Amino acid sequence: MGEKLRILVWNEGVHEANNEPAHIGEIYPDGIHGAIAAGLRSFYPESEITTAVLADDQHGLSEEVLAETDVLLWWGHIAHDQVGDAVVDRVQRHVLGGMGLIVLHSGHFAKIFTRLLGTSCSLAWRNDGERELVWTVKPSHPIAEGVDSPIVIPEQEMYGELFDIPDPDDLIFISSFAGGEVFRSGVTFTRGKGRIFYFSPGDQEYPVYHHPQIQRVLANGVRWAAQPGLDRSAPAVTNPARDWFAER
Amino acid sequence: MGEKLRILVWNEGVHEANNEPAHIGEIYPDGIHGAIAAGLRSFYPESEITTAVLADDQHGLSEEVLAETDVLLWWGHIAHDQVGDAVVDRVQRHVLGGMGLIVLHSGHFAKIFTRLLGTSCSLAWRNDGERELVWTVKPSHPIAEGVDSPIVIPEQEMYGELFDIPDPDDLIFISSFAGGEVFRSGVTFTRGKGRIFYFSPGDQEYPVYHHPQIQRVLANGVRWAAQPGLDRSAPAVTNPARDWFAER
Amino acid sequence: MGEKLRILVWNEGVHEANNEPAHIGEIYPDGIHGAIAAGLRSFYPESEITTAVLADDQHGLSEEVLAETDVLLWWGHIAHDQVGDAVVDRVQRHVLGGMGLIVLHSGHFAKIFTRLLGTSCSLAWRNDGERELVWTVKPSHPIAEGVDSPIVIPEQEMYGELFDIPDPDDLIFISSFAGGEVFRSGVTFTRGKGRIFYFSPGDQEYPVYHHPQIQRVLANGVRWAAQPGLDRSAPAVTNPARDWFAER
Amino acid sequence: MGEKLRILVWNEGVHEANNEPAHIGEIYPDGIHGAIAAGLRSFYPESEITTAVLADDQHGLSEEVLAETDVLLWWGHIAHDQVGDAVVDRVQRHVLGGMGLIVLHSGHFAKIFTRLLGTSCSLAWRNDGERELVWTVKPSHPIAEGVDSPIVIPEQEMYGELFDIPDPDDLIFISSFAGGEVFRSGVTFTRGKGRIFYFSPGDQEYPVYHHPQIQRVLANGVRWAAQPGLDRSAPAVTNPARDWFAER
Repeated sequence: MGEKLRILVWNEGVHEANNEPAHIGEIYPDGIHGAIAAGLRSFYPESEITTAVLADDQHGLSEEVLAETDVLLWWGHIAHDQVGDAVVDRVQRHVLGGMGLIVLHSGHFAKIFTRLLGTSCSLAWRNDGERELVWTVKPSHPIAEGVDSPIVIPEQEMYGELFDIPDPDDLIFISSFAGGEVFRSGVTFTRGKGRIFYFSPGDQEYPVYHHPQIQRVLANGVRWAAQPGLDRSAPAVTNPARDWFAER
Repeated sequence: MGEKLRILVWNEGVHEANNEPAHIGEIYPDGIHGAIAAGLRSFYPESEITTAVLADDQHGLSEEVLAETDVLLWWGHIAHDQVGDAVVDRVQRHVLGGMGLIVLHSGHFAKIFTRLLGTSCSLAWRNDGERELVWTVKPSHPIAEGVDSPIVIPEQEMYGELFDIPDPDDLIFISSFAGGEVFRSGVTFTRGKGRIFYFSPGDQEYPVYHHPQIQRVLANGVRWAAQPGLDRSAPAVTNPARDWFAER
Repeated sequence: MGEKLRILVWNEGVHEANNEPAHIGEIYPDGIHGAIAAGLRSFYPESEITTAVLADDQHGLSEEVLAETDVLLWWGHIAHDQVGDAVVDRVQRHVLGGMGLIVLHSGHFAKIFTRLLGTSCSLAWRNDGERELVWTVKPSHPIAEGVDSPIVIPEQEMYGELFDIPDPDDLIFISSFAGGEVFRSGVTFTRGKGRIFYFSPGDQEYPVYHHPQIQRVLANGVRWAAQPGLDRSAPAVTNPARDWFAER
Repeated sequence: MGEKLRILVWNEGVHEANNEPAHIGEIYPDGIHGAIAAGLRSFYPESEITTAVLADDQHGLSEEVLAETDVLLWWGHIAHDQVGDAVVDRVQRHVLGGMGLIVLHSGHFAKIFTRLLGTSCSLAWRNDGERELVWTVKPSHPIAEGVDSPIVIPEQEMYGELFDIPDPDDLIFISSFAGGEVFRSGVTFTRGKGRIFYFSPGDQEYPVYHHPQIQRVLANGVRWAAQPGLDRSAPAVTNPARDWFAER
């Protein structure tokens, strides 16, 4: 896998800063972003993989940084409201212009996700350490390539339906939990020229991002979402003259 | 609900004829088709609801009968190969022309279903009397109207992914089973002018078709699939002259 | 068609107030909203059909009014930015809760539309009085029922691709224009429990809303989008205990 | 583009054998298949690109050949009924197992296409040498990468709606013709593990397959449809024991 992609893993980083839960430093000594980045590096050793957190200047998401990013991964949970609206505007514009976006777990309530989807993105949840099974339902999709069905996650927070999202472009994974709930855990959307992948497994209390199969899904997601050769411009209104295309 | 629809419930009727399983006469004294028809009658007392079985002449699916049918429900299991190809051709033609079709449970392997879908329609199964939970994931769909989420079915055969179907037009229900498997248990398709609904709960060993919520889903499905005012003709090739529409 | 629906036709009403274009009073003596409402009344004589404009208190879109509305139609063009954000929040909440929404023509840039879709909703346009042909591509959809294919509109503003919208749930109509451009002119979306229909024909310069076939499409759209029996509440986050559904 | 793919271009080859139309030898001296293959070679010089025709033994589509094919392109027109059913069965099995399939122009009526789609695949047509414009409506799709919108084809047979196909997974291109008709000219489907792309431009009377932009679309389609690393097996029914996945 010799791709040279520019990947940015964003994490609010507040759980880590607050050492909450108390064992987060054990399971994620380099932060959730550090674990995700490490997993991606094992797949894309030639890619440029960086991280950023909420506390960084402009949350580490300046115009310059986004312009040089092929795929942005987003993890947030308890500080969604601290993300500045100007930054959300900027990320949205880059997604519409073709930047890939991968939203993870509790990022379902991130401003950028609800902004792009237009729904509440609400769901049912229960933190009871239940076994999650992640089943592939679209094996032809690039994100399912080489992925076990089911992926077995011994302990995880339950996320259940109704997941209030628009109909996805593709439904790739459905999870079940020990308690019987189900969840559309891997779904894709397009907005403008950008490709978006939401994947729910992964939490601050459980070491899910060290699971080799979860790492493979994220690596597949990055490759699918990346459009490195694309001119980065969002669709815009035009007022063409009649027969403007005649010279072609 | 004062609709006057013409509804035909088809069942191969072989389990009933063979008294297999031995308790089928207790749970379905009027056959599976009889139970389904009774459920529909409680919703549509003014509709014309009839039944037919494999042993009937032309399987009860003559040209005349189909021409007078708004929605056909299909239950089959162990005799799919005994359904004549000419009858399958005829049913397909009527679906393309606008007749509604509701395929139930083991009907996933019916000739008419694989013919219309183009895939193997294979799945995983296990008959272990597991609890099935049917979760609504598209609450805005007419088939989900007034349906509990989840529907709780105490005992049922497990059907699990991978369910080899094309991407449905709408995914309305996802089931989980006690063993952890999941299944896209309520899905719609369109083929030609016809509307198709597949719904998996319902089996010869369990009294699922007496469940009030399952009856409601089938009643909703019938209303959604019916197009009583439509001219019954399948799309066909045309060779129009330029500007043929100019008179409009 | 004996439906008793509660239908609200909203128009910014600025073109009419400014008498711009000068002939608007001739083609729409009761305003664009008046023409749309009149068309709907011919289909639903027993329904309650009202109108509201931007200049009304709260733009005529108070909590009380929306709570009593099954379907809201939206026409806007040159005053999108004058629609208050609090009203947009309110309309969005009602759509997520199940109110139907039909967005018309230049409403593609309305705040409520871009809010619900998450994209720029930009397009190409040219006001050259070109013939528009509206072709049905999903004849099984309720909105296509009884609609000619193509609908011929002698003169209309051109709207062309790229129309920057998410993939619709259903693509029902595609238009072509005399200049050769194409446009996805009839598309549906769901957001939360609400059904949304966008339909592009209709403009302040051309008498399109008097066209019988256009009136039929809008009438079909209203019936499709309405869910009069639905509890009006947007999906919300829940935290259920394990086995909460066991009593069912 | 260093991909090493195994690409097979199939053409019935009857127009060429019959020298009908009389100028086919001028516009396609190496046959339609030869022109398509040449276009692909310019994009994938390291790939193995072969051709086959109806007159070949087993139509050149033996089990051994298909097992070594990543993507099959299919052009047919006047001899669909001469394609043996056993060959169609075999091609379908390989598609369900993951072989890519690209169906071209009049191949809309090929047995393999109607088999996989389940509809009539009928359409409107008129051979009047009309200008076709091919507009991109999903710019984020890999098949649209680097493609002009519109592609201008000076003369082409008209294909118009209603195109009786199931809702595609993705609608990428919509064409308009000088006479005003529109057509969903670039659409994708998945069946089993296989990816299918239908693309309508290209005819025995017009030199469309020499158009650089058409060649680019086909090259993009091949790359999108190919899954060279995939185990070639169609989905099949399974009967797993409870907790079969527990060892993972």
